[in-house]
Formats: sequence, C-alpha cells, structure tokens
Amino acid sequence: MTGKPDQSKAQTGKIVISVDAMGGDAGPAVVVAGIAKSAEKNPNIGFILHGPEDELAPLVAKRRILADRVVIRHVDSVVTMDDKPSQVMRNGKGTSMWSALDAVKNGEAAGVVSCGNTGALMALSMLRLRKVPGVNRPAIAILWPSRNPQGFNVMLDVGADVRADAQDLLQYALMGTSYTRNSMDIARPRVGLLNVGTEEHKGRAELKEAHALIAENAGIADYEFVGFVEGSDIPGNVADVIVTDGFTGNVAIKTGEGTASLVRSALREAFEYSFLSKIAALLAYTSLSRLAKRIDPRRANGGVFLGLNGTVVKSHGGADATGVSAAVKLAFRLAEQGFAEKLAARVASAVELTQDAAGSDDDDRISTK
Amino acid sequence: MTGKPDQSKAQTGKIVISVDAMGGDAGPAVVVAGIAKSAEKNPNIGFILHGPEDELAPLVAKRRILADRVVIRHVDSVVTMDDKPSQVMRNGKGTSMWSALDAVKNGEAAGVVSCGNTGALMALSMLRLRKVPGVNRPAIAILWPSRNPQGFNVMLDVGADVRADAQDLLQYALMGTSYTRNSMDIARPRVGLLNVGTEEHKGRAELKEAHALIAENAGIADYEFVGFVEGSDIPGNVADVIVTDGFTGNVAIKTGEGTASLVRSALREAFEYSFLSKIAALLAYTSLSRLAKRIDPRRANGGVFLGLNGTVVKSHGGADATGVSAAVKLAFRLAEQGFAEKLAARVASAVELTQDAAGSDDDDRISTK
Repeated sequence: MTGKPDQSKAQTGKIVISVDAMGGDAGPAVVVAGIAKSAEKNPNIGFILHGPEDELAPLVAKRRILADRVVIRHVDSVVTMDDKPSQVMRNGKGTSMWSALDAVKNGEAAGVVSCGNTGALMALSMLRLRKVPGVNRPAIAILWPSRNPQGFNVMLDVGADVRADAQDLLQYALMGTSYTRNSMDIARPRVGLLNVGTEEHKGRAELKEAHALIAENAGIADYEFVGFVEGSDIPGNVADVIVTDGFTGNVAIKTGEGTASLVRSALREAFEYSFLSKIAALLAYTSLSRLAKRIDPRRANGGVFLGLNGTVVKSHGGADATGVSAAVKLAFRLAEQGFAEKLAARVASAVELTQDAAGSDDDDRISTK
Repeated sequence: MTGKPDQSKAQTGKIVISVDAMGGDAGPAVVVAGIAKSAEKNPNIGFILHGPEDELAPLVAKRRILADRVVIRHVDSVVTMDDKPSQVMRNGKGTSMWSALDAVKNGEAAGVVSCGNTGALMALSMLRLRKVPGVNRPAIAILWPSRNPQGFNVMLDVGADVRADAQDLLQYALMGTSYTRNSMDIARPRVGLLNVGTEEHKGRAELKEAHALIAENAGIADYEFVGFVEGSDIPGNVADVIVTDGFTGNVAIKTGEGTASLVRSALREAFEYSFLSKIAALLAYTSLSRLAKRIDPRRANGGVFLGLNGTVVKSHGGADATGVSAAVKLAFRLAEQGFAEKLAARVASAVELTQDAAGSDDDDRISTK
C-alpha cells in the first residue's frame, strides 16, 4: 500500500489498469514494454504494476513515457505456470496475481491484465472478485479469427469449467452478447450454439434444452439466435458469438492452435521444396507471417473472464509486447464502456425473467447440483 | 443378383471391394474414375459397383482398365445427404448404400467404400453388418494430418455417437490400436486420451476412469499409453491414436476443417496483397495447394467405421477421383490384412479379461444404460 499517495497524483482523470507484471513466459521486461506501447498510444490510461519493486523500478525508469503513469505495488511472490489453482487459492496471498486482482476489488483500478497461469487466475478471480449475482459458472471468452467483417468471433466457454448445463449455456449466450456488443460495436450479435450438426434433433439432451432457452431469450436480450452451429463455423461467418461448454471449447481452441502451428511448419517445408519455392518464400515472407498469426486463436489479444465483479483479461503466456498492449487496450475499452456493470445488469434481468417464467423449476435445477 | 455369374469369373483370385457409386457430391462419374485409378495401380483388386445400371454401365465401359474387373449391381434408389438415418433404416432397402453393405454381409466382397451421408451409412452399417461382440458403441476413426513420422494420427470417435463412457473409451483405444497397427505398420502404437490438460487430476469424471482402464490394458493389448493429451497434440507427435467421445471428436475435426479453409482463403488474400506477393503466389502455387490439402483432416483418405462385422470406409462427400482411389486403397489394405477379424479377436480377448477382473461390475454398467 506504499504506492497509494503517488497513485492518486499520477492517475488523476485516467482509467487505471492493474497489471500483473510477473507470470508470463518472457518475464516482466516484456510486460513493461507492452504497457509502454499502450501509454504511447493512449494518454488516458494509467497503471498499477504488481511485482518485486527492485525488478520493476529499473524497467519502468527506462521508459520515459511511463513517468507519472505507473504506480508499482511491491510483492515478492509469483504464481508459476505449474502451480495448481487449489494451492494458489490457499497460499496465493502476496503474489503479484493476487495483488493485481485486489486493486480492482478495492476500486483502485478498472480492470486487470495478467499473462499468468489461466487456472490459477480464474480461481483467484472467483475468490477475490466473486461471481456476479445470477451467474452459476463464470466463463472465459476468446476472440477467434474468422471470416466475419470484424475479423473475429467471440467464443465461450474455452476452459473455465469442464461442465455446463442448459442454464449455464444460456448465461454464456447472455454474457457473450454483452461482451461482443461492448468490445466490437455490434448492436445485435448473432449467437450460435456449438453442436455436431445443425439439425435441431441432433446432439446431447442439454443442448436441445439450451437451444430452446437461448431461442426464448433472443428478444429480451436483443441478439439473433442462429441455432446450432458446427466446428467448421467457428472460423466462419454465421455467428458472432459461439456458445459451448468449457471442455469442448478448450479442445477446439487447442486444436486451432495446433493446426496453426502445423501450418507454420508445413509452410516452412513447402518453401524448402524447390528452388522456385525458396524464391517465393522470400517474396511472400511478410504475407505468410501475417497469415500464421491470423489463424491462431491463442495469439489473439486475450481471453476475458466473464461473470465476475470486475474485468479480468488473460493475455497469452507467451505474449510479446504487442500482445500485452493489445490485452491492455481490451481491458481499457471494456472499463471505458462500464462493461462489468452492464453485464451484471443484463444477467440480473434475464435471471429475473427466467424465474418469473419458470416458477419453482429454477430452484429445482439448482438444488439437484 | 443378375451380376453373380459374371462376378465369379471376373473376380477370381482378387480382393473384391464393394463400392457405393452414388451419394457423393460429384456423382458416379467421379467414383468410377476413382476405381479406375485403383485398378491401374493394383492388379489384385476387383469391384462390385452399386447404382442404376443405365448410368453406371456407360461410365464403366469407357474405362478399358475396368473390363472384367467390375460387376454392376443394379439398384434404382439413392440415399441423399439430407436423408435422416432413422428414415434410411426403415426405407433404405433398394438404395445403393444398402446394396453395397449387403455384398459384404453376404461374403461377396471384403470391404465397402461409400462417399454418402455419414449418419445414414453408420446406421445402415450397424443394421446390416451388426456390431462385433463386446463392442457397445462402434466408432468412426479418421486420419489426422500430424507431425508423426507417418504423417497422420488416428483419431476416434469423430461422430458415430455423441456419448462415450469409460468402457467405450477403452474400446476405442483397443480398436484404434488395432486399426493403426494394420493400416500403418506401427507395431506398438502410442495411445493418448483427449482432455483439457495433461495433469491426471483434470477433466471430467469418466475421463479419469477411462485413464485408469486404458492404462491397465496397455500391456495385454500391446500399446503405449501416453496419458492425457490436449487439442494441440492432435496434429502433433506425442501419440499415434487419439481417443475421445464422438461429440468432442466431431467438433475437433470440423474445427480443423474450418481452420484449413480459413487458411486457404487467407493465403489467397495474402498473395493478392502486393505485386511481389502475386509473383510469389505464382511460384509457390503447387507447394501451397499441397499444404492446404495436408492440414485438412476431412480431406484425408477416408474415415473407417470400427467395431462392425466388416470393413466400411467412408470417403469424403466432396472427394475427387484421387480421394475415392485413396479410400479404395485403404479398404483393400485392411481386407488384405484380415483387419475386421483381427479387431474382433482383440476386442473379444480384452472384454474377457475385463470381465475376469471386474466380475459382475461390467454387467452392472451395461444394465444401467
């Protein structure tokens, strides 16, 4: 708490983002480079940076743009990629991740960015920020490179929870709609429910139930429900929001990531094949690097945790300065729009409506868990 | 049955593959072109071709290589891509798909190839060929382009059934091992179980149970169990057989397909970006077409239905002559190896062992379904 007096001076009139400087694969230097990039582009942004002061202070001092824009909050400890979420929940106090979340909990910052361990970040986010009333399972939403005019679809859940029942899937639709509206300027997002076929009779029982619930709520929540979509539609242009359970979503993004990585190595091989293709490679180098980045869903600028009292953006563990800066931009934009509050209001009104409509059914559902 | 006398003359000493000439997107001409390609390469192969004789006879007559190698089995009707599996099971008699399966059921052919409707083909295969004793749910296995020395992983189930419990997943491991050994010359395949993380405590309950079962059977069934694998490992080189339920597997292959298709269009765009990259595109055209095909799991040479009394190869609905020929080659190779019988024996011995070990547990499991 030694930073507080500085902070009030430094951050006047700015939107403050709380940044976990530790936990990324490349260490704090890349994180500081990333926030410097953001600071250059955006005069209305300030930072609270969490980590060991002796490491962070020299890195911040080197960047003139960060003078008076960054408060360092000293903590000694770091959550590593191998730490189990349950351990971190018990012993995580004093880590940079915990401290970064507490800055939002205490109202000092409007959003958190961390490159750290996803499972631990979700567990600590639930512990420190708590779930929004009416949300049973928070979700992780990512931007998936697609053929949409905006270049991305929002897909959720990609790994917060391995289970999701029909009510959870409805909440994902509501939260995904709210996120898409606030991050992408799409007034009435198209929502699709991921299944093994587009016919209504296909798939698991909870998906048929979710299909009915999401269709019912389309009017009040102001989205267009396009029904079931398939894996091939994820990078397509039939929906803006793809709703699925965290098990399927996680397998899908990692499959996309693996395919993108196979493309990268296959491209290298393809261009080593002949003399002509070596020349082609030289000529095409820039275009192809752009492509390889574009198709990898894990390279997009960050997953957002939805359903919590506060905005948490998870940047890729291997993010470079540009990646960190993109995650910061997303957190800033969502904070500016008052997104966390809008989402809470949206979920609350839908829950009320569902309860009105279903009477005691909803209680039954919850009690059987 | 008018073809029978010809057939015995034509097919002496050959392995006969039963081919559904109808149902593919491109019609019978492409199928006939595909079997002609196979006939050119392989003197030991013969065909029974199912479909309307007036359409098929002129197509066959045009290919000299097919003289005395093809028996046409006349049927009027065709299963379309829009037909529901349940309808086809009731009314499918007299279709080319039904007739193609019956040729294997009656012992006239050693395997079936069809480009038709996957759901209908699986439903009819179960109806006409029946499940191997001990198999609860048959599975569809595909070859997924990967970094393995053989260039492919085997993944199953990719859509025969949306559910799979721990015992089903064990059977998929056994069947996938048997298939890999017979189609790829890998003596001791590495088996991985698809999950959201590689730590043993992660994922759904049935996956933890399956993990234990598959580990237990590794010795007797002679595979190496590498434990949990993730989506990013599907196109990788950590396993030869990837085991998952048909819901997750189906989403994964369609995600791979969608990503491959996004790559194709992004490549086109990338090469339209500048004058230099247009030249690069010209130079690199062949390499890039090879790549686009290579990364698409649905373009590989066919899904195989495992767990039935007979070999059924499902070729892609949009397959060209090369694709049909690759599916025929796969059916031939599996027939030559006596694959269907080996798989049945493998499953039977594992079921016996499991029953010995578990006593009445196995009966409980089946009765609770």
